[in-house]
Amino acid sequence: MYTSYISILCFLVDTGGTDGLLAQKTLEITNEVLSSYKNQGGYDMLGRTKDQIRTTEQVNGAMATCQALKLDALVIIGGVTSNTDAAQLAETFAEAKCATKVVGVPVTLNGDLKNQFVETTVGFDTICKVNSQLISNMCTDALSAEKYYYFIRMMGRKASHVALECALQSHPNMVILGEEVAASKLTIFDITKQICDAVQARAEKDKNHGVILIPEGLVESIPELYALLQEINGLHGKGVSVENISSQLSPWASALFEFLPQFIRQQLLLRPESDDSAQLSQIETEKLLAQLVETEMNKRLKEGTYKGKKFNAICHFFGYQARGAMPSKFDCDYAYVLGHVCYHILAAGLNGYMATVTNLKSPLNKWRCGAAPISSMMTVKGWSRGPATTQIGKPAVHMASVDLRGKAYEMLRQNSSSCLLEDIYRNPGPLQFEGPGADAKPISLCVEDQDYMGRIKKLQEYLEKVKSIVKPGCSQDVLKAALSAMSSVTETLAIMTSSSTGQPPL
Amino acid sequence: MYTSYISILCFLVDTGGTDGLLAQKTLEITNEVLSSYKNQGGYDMLGRTKDQIRTTEQVNGAMATCQALKLDALVIIGGVTSNTDAAQLAETFAEAKCATKVVGVPVTLNGDLKNQFVETTVGFDTICKVNSQLISNMCTDALSAEKYYYFIRMMGRKASHVALECALQSHPNMVILGEEVAASKLTIFDITKQICDAVQARAEKDKNHGVILIPEGLVESIPELYALLQEINGLHGKGVSVENISSQLSPWASALFEFLPQFIRQQLLLRPESDDSAQLSQIETEKLLAQLVETEMNKRLKEGTYKGKKFNAICHFFGYQARGAMPSKFDCDYAYVLGHVCYHILAAGLNGYMATVTNLKSPLNKWRCGAAPISSMMTVKGWSRGPATTQIGKPAVHMASVDLRGKAYEMLRQNSSSCLLEDIYRNPGPLQFEGPGADAKPISLCVEDQDYMGRIKKLQEYLEKVKSIVKPGCSQDVLKAALSAMSSVTETLAIMTSSSTGQPPL
Repeated sequence: MYTSYISILCFLVDTGGTDGLLAQKTLEITNEVLSSYKNQGGYDMLGRTKDQIRTTEQVNGAMATCQALKLDALVIIGGVTSNTDAAQLAETFAEAKCATKVVGVPVTLNGDLKNQFVETTVGFDTICKVNSQLISNMCTDALSAEKYYYFIRMMGRKASHVALECALQSHPNMVILGEEVAASKLTIFDITKQICDAVQARAEKDKNHGVILIPEGLVESIPELYALLQEINGLHGKGVSVENISSQLSPWASALFEFLPQFIRQQLLLRPESDDSAQLSQIETEKLLAQLVETEMNKRLKEGTYKGKKFNAICHFFGYQARGAMPSKFDCDYAYVLGHVCYHILAAGLNGYMATVTNLKSPLNKWRCGAAPISSMMTVKGWSRGPATTQIGKPAVHMASVDLRGKAYEMLRQNSSSCLLEDIYRNPGPLQFEGPGADAKPISLCVEDQDYMGRIKKLQEYLEKVKSIVKPGCSQDVLKAALSAMSSVTETLAIMTSSSTGQPPL
Repeated sequence: MYTSYISILCFLVDTGGTDGLLAQKTLEITNEVLSSYKNQGGYDMLGRTKDQIRTTEQVNGAMATCQALKLDALVIIGGVTSNTDAAQLAETFAEAKCATKVVGVPVTLNGDLKNQFVETTVGFDTICKVNSQLISNMCTDALSAEKYYYFIRMMGRKASHVALECALQSHPNMVILGEEVAASKLTIFDITKQICDAVQARAEKDKNHGVILIPEGLVESIPELYALLQEINGLHGKGVSVENISSQLSPWASALFEFLPQFIRQQLLLRPESDDSAQLSQIETEKLLAQLVETEMNKRLKEGTYKGKKFNAICHFFGYQARGAMPSKFDCDYAYVLGHVCYHILAAGLNGYMATVTNLKSPLNKWRCGAAPISSMMTVKGWSRGPATTQIGKPAVHMASVDLRGKAYEMLRQNSSSCLLEDIYRNPGPLQFEGPGADAKPISLCVEDQDYMGRIKKLQEYLEKVKSIVKPGCSQDVLKAALSAMSSVTETLAIMTSSSTGQPPL
């Protein structure tokens, strides 16, 4: 959770992330202070901590600060976790008659805060542009040397939005989305086999190089590794020390654990993050896969089923080096507009709202500003998260996975076999501030159906039109046709709504 | 050695690097073929191999191809190794009355082909710009999170030009140049202590984050590690298998080897490159240093001599991701001009020359095109390279180290203590093709005294001026003064020249 807290009305700011908020550290943001941070990347103006504002103690601490400093508002910038906390704070503040309003702003490089109101988050475009450039460079390099497979793990937490967008931008040979693996319940051996078969198919076309993208969340999408992580997480929760965890695993988890190479065992044993998920940035899934693939390819080479050159992999992790990057023009524009919306939300005296801008794929003058109650984005998930779970049933803004029925994923699949075999690498080039490409937006943003509120408005127009046609004085035939059609429509919608899972539509 | 071979006169090209040359693989470069590669990065149009053209067999093979294809010229693009081979080829071709002329072009990302004729190489600017951006992003990220030390190893082979330029561009807290370490004969423990003292000094200013650059060549600059690598190299040369090498090391080398962590031992045992140097890209010196620093900081923490937060390091290797990048405007211009110069060299019937452009820091219309015999850049080095050496005494174009008396290094040192303690990070931003920054050149290029040929010309002008003043008819006093002054000048220069080491002046 990366949070910063800006009281935009009184221009007083807490520094040092959540820790700073609780410790009442402040910085007055004057034009002069702001000038050297405008349109720059990073959270270095205010600092960032990975803490949370969730426990009663933390919430009360935050409220004490807001009251002591007489803040008009607390603006929370972050992803799903931060905005969940924002909603809870807003409710607590309101109950306690605290005058400070809480506003959320959708900012996270992972792109996993996505729903009917939020089309993308600030930072996602920049991170994808910087990483896509690097992936493309690797593709060119792979094609130049013709002897290496580059395994590249991408930052992005549990969901694979970053990997998907980067794949659409740069056309690597393969990308393995966590959502696909979870949906098909692929084991680590299935994935290894998929990659090996790809290497073999390419070798038959005399290609001994390639680029494979792996989202960092993949490890939690592989059923048996996820189950293992959950057991480890549970033992951490019981206070078992790291050295003793392996001896207390269940027999099947222990067998899997012992099978894994030493380096990954240590990484799986790391303490989980504040949101209970594994330390994904520290688990080198790309090295694990590269090693398993190498072993299998050597076996096939020995058996004579594979006749290509010796398999060589080089592993990379892309994430940190894009995180503090100068933001793209799109992200700058988006953030400026959101900031302005925040001001209006607070001027209107609203509490617990998120600033939103929709219709983002259209030109800037068609963007639609809005504000949505954070609670309207919250759902209750019933599924268990393993023995360590403490939050079942608590409403939260949940992470959005890559929609496997969405248009961006469809686009990826359409090109997947030519990407795999024909090296149709694409280089979007370095992020530009002027000239061609400077105004490019994320591909996955541009292909999706968006403007949810715009489409709701469109529907209302249809209903109005029916009303204006079918009014006293219209013919019996028209009334009959309208009644029959609308009865069928309402029945269909009623059935669809009753079978809905409560998941917000995308 | 990255070589590509273009016969620019007949537009016939060998593909697949050196292997392709020997196998007589060809590709006619038409405008159509070229159009999709113009101003792009990578060697994927022709392919690249890491081989060499050095043995009699290879040289004869190359000659056979040139004769069979009736090539007018063989253009060799590369760094010091490739151009050494080019010079040898030129001589052999001339002796054998082979009609093909050989021309060299200075292209290498390492920037280590540098002498009185070559101010920088094609690729160096791009690699430094792409990497500097990423380092700057890491600096911003370090400052945002305030809890990690990022150890970043930079590609660049044995010399530290890339690390120096990137440090001048992005102002990380520390950079450890191989040349400094070699000059001061620092051991791995000295370097560890330097870093630990820096961490401690920063902690006293309440800073628990930082960014440290490490050139990949550092490992060969540390005396005891270099000696160990030379022993391993020698045993490889004697055909000792990897498993048996550790048991055949001398007692002191064995003691050092056993002290090192497992991961680095495996990396040190890798077979050397074609130029006998270690596989620098595979040796994770940054991880070794991070581990040693962590151990020492934990010790200091326990003893109470260090009172800061627990030391946390995250390691990175930057190189592959910049190698195939879209070239900077400077590199595109430089490469176009060099290509044009090649044409003129060949039209003039010259053999064994390198295309050169000097006065590069001036605007493009002041660039000075030239051609220099590659042999004039070659020297014979007398020092031993350990038991595996086979080339002592053979003339070669040698790698240029960072000049510790040069202006670029002086600039780095001037800022080093404020960089270390004050976080004056600088972000040059992503490589731009238009707008501000698009015409930036390497800082290390711009601060050095250059235009060697221009300055020779200036000297000749002085001599001519003396000649024109001191001629029959001038006064006795003028003659006397001139004689005295010139006698003193010639004597000084004679003494300086006789004590010279044969090293080409920079």
